[in-house]
Amino acid sequence: MSSQRATAFVPGHVTAFFSAHPADEPAVAGSRGAGVTLTDGVTVRVSAPAGETDAATGGDGGAASDGPGSRTIDGEPGSIGAVDDVLAELGARGADVAVETDLPIGAGFGISGAAALGAALAANDAFDRGRSENDLVRIAHAAEVGRGTGLGDVVAQARGGVPVRLEPGAPGVGELDGVPATARVEYVTFGELSTEAVLGGDTDALTAAGEDALDRLRADPRLPTLMDAARRFAREADLLVPEAAEAIAAVDADGGSPESSGSPDDLGAAMAMLGRTVFALGTGLSDAGYDPNVCRIDAAGARLVDERGRE
Amino acid sequence: MSSQRATAFVPGHVTAFFSAHPADEPAVAGSRGAGVTLTDGVTVRVSAPAGETDAATGGDGGAASDGPGSRTIDGEPGSIGAVDDVLAELGARGADVAVETDLPIGAGFGISGAAALGAALAANDAFDRGRSENDLVRIAHAAEVGRGTGLGDVVAQARGGVPVRLEPGAPGVGELDGVPATARVEYVTFGELSTEAVLGGDTDALTAAGEDALDRLRADPRLPTLMDAARRFAREADLLVPEAAEAIAAVDADGGSPESSGSPDDLGAAMAMLGRTVFALGTGLSDAGYDPNVCRIDAAGARLVDERGRE
Repeated sequence: MSSQRATAFVPGHVTAFFSAHPADEPAVAGSRGAGVTLTDGVTVRVSAPAGETDAATGGDGGAASDGPGSRTIDGEPGSIGAVDDVLAELGARGADVAVETDLPIGAGFGISGAAALGAALAANDAFDRGRSENDLVRIAHAAEVGRGTGLGDVVAQARGGVPVRLEPGAPGVGELDGVPATARVEYVTFGELSTEAVLGGDTDALTAAGEDALDRLRADPRLPTLMDAARRFAREADLLVPEAAEAIAAVDADGGSPESSGSPDDLGAAMAMLGRTVFALGTGLSDAGYDPNVCRIDAAGARLVDERGRE
Repeated sequence: MSSQRATAFVPGHVTAFFSAHPADEPAVAGSRGAGVTLTDGVTVRVSAPAGETDAATGGDGGAASDGPGSRTIDGEPGSIGAVDDVLAELGARGADVAVETDLPIGAGFGISGAAALGAALAANDAFDRGRSENDLVRIAHAAEVGRGTGLGDVVAQARGGVPVRLEPGAPGVGELDGVPATARVEYVTFGELSTEAVLGGDTDALTAAGEDALDRLRADPRLPTLMDAARRFAREADLLVPEAAEAIAAVDADGGSPESSGSPDDLGAAMAMLGRTVFALGTGLSDAGYDPNVCRIDAAGARLVDERGRE
């Protein structure tokens, strides 16, 4: 619909483990692995300037706009590279784009991927570009990979739930499955960690550990196995930061993990890849005395939302 | 999690158009086409008998249970063939299964597919069977195809939104895309229509019309094109029943379609395949004086729900 204004919500995504699979073509590049999408996420609002919603004027490179529109992040001026690339691809650089999130930025929640995917969904709607869902996910994935800010968040965020990335890449190239589950999620963040620095270095050990973790989860696609594989991955890939190790141990000591508790709802904690963030399924972090943010596994994945509330 | 009790919600699905692609292997059989998933759907509650949740006892044919548990549909005793087949496949025939829906049965909303998929998700959780999402969708799809009650509802209901079935079959075989959209949905039902009778007859003309409709939607994946393709499909496939033709014409005459109204929110009405049901995107049916049920496009697709409400 040519609505001129559109809003999309994209869940946050914490990666439990991954292996990196770079490639020259951005739609083919990506990661294998698994993670958890969150009901805490990113909302992207896109407004098309008057006269910019004719489908005939764009979709092939951004020639339709004289210059970029406004860009804000949580109300302050600010732009995200992958978002700009998505808008250029959709001929929507003239859009006003507002990105809002309660999640901490740079802490392993896939904010840049979520913003890129939300911008793709909302700009497609506001500018009436007539792209399909797979096409929009591919555009956002390629923008994220091209900027070096992520490899697997976009396809995971598009699916929702507990996505398992069986094969890397955009829709039509990659392949997804999921762990069927709903759960409470708690998380605490201790600061930023650069995705680009880790992904730009030697990733051989990381990839071996990630492939092992994926094999284990495919053999037993359940949440306890996901969390156990995540903890082992962080150690084997040498990515565990001290604050995260301390929090994971505190959850374990307090009975908040399946090894130390009789309750199947206590699934322990793990470190979000890549961020100085620890997430727990159940109440492990709050039981251990932390003051975590609380949300749930997001069942839906990325979606347009109707803020006019028509029913 | 070995919860012993589990609940799943699966959206209703109205098919706009389709082509039938039978095959000897149920996971390969299916349909191409497109439709709309609904926030009105089917809730399936599964309870495992005591001692039945050990993963070692089942998952390979139902030998774990002495006999079938209770089966209800909207509180009355009743069973659905595809649900029984799903439970047998998961070694969960001893489960008590309650299917509840506000949707009319036999009217084109994919109730049997939704019940099969909901039973798969809930039984996997209650019996701790450790199957992946793709595996559960495949099991439900195969059961539905095996019973002859549907070809494409299950994979569409698993995805949610406005699913486009590019290639027929279960996950790993078929291929999906989607029309990115949110909208109000209205529907009215005039009675039952047998899916088995239509799918069992000569489907050549139907399949040709369905392939044409899919080509049109792939070239322009927007809601107005979906609804226009659906109306043309119903005529060309000779499936339009008189009550549906009358309601669609009434919506059109009242300005509730894009051809007769200036509003992009009025997208007209079409007949649900296969049922004596007309659905409209927007307010076309209520504007035309009908008293429709009202819901929205479901963004999430099939999911486990936590009825304990932990947050």
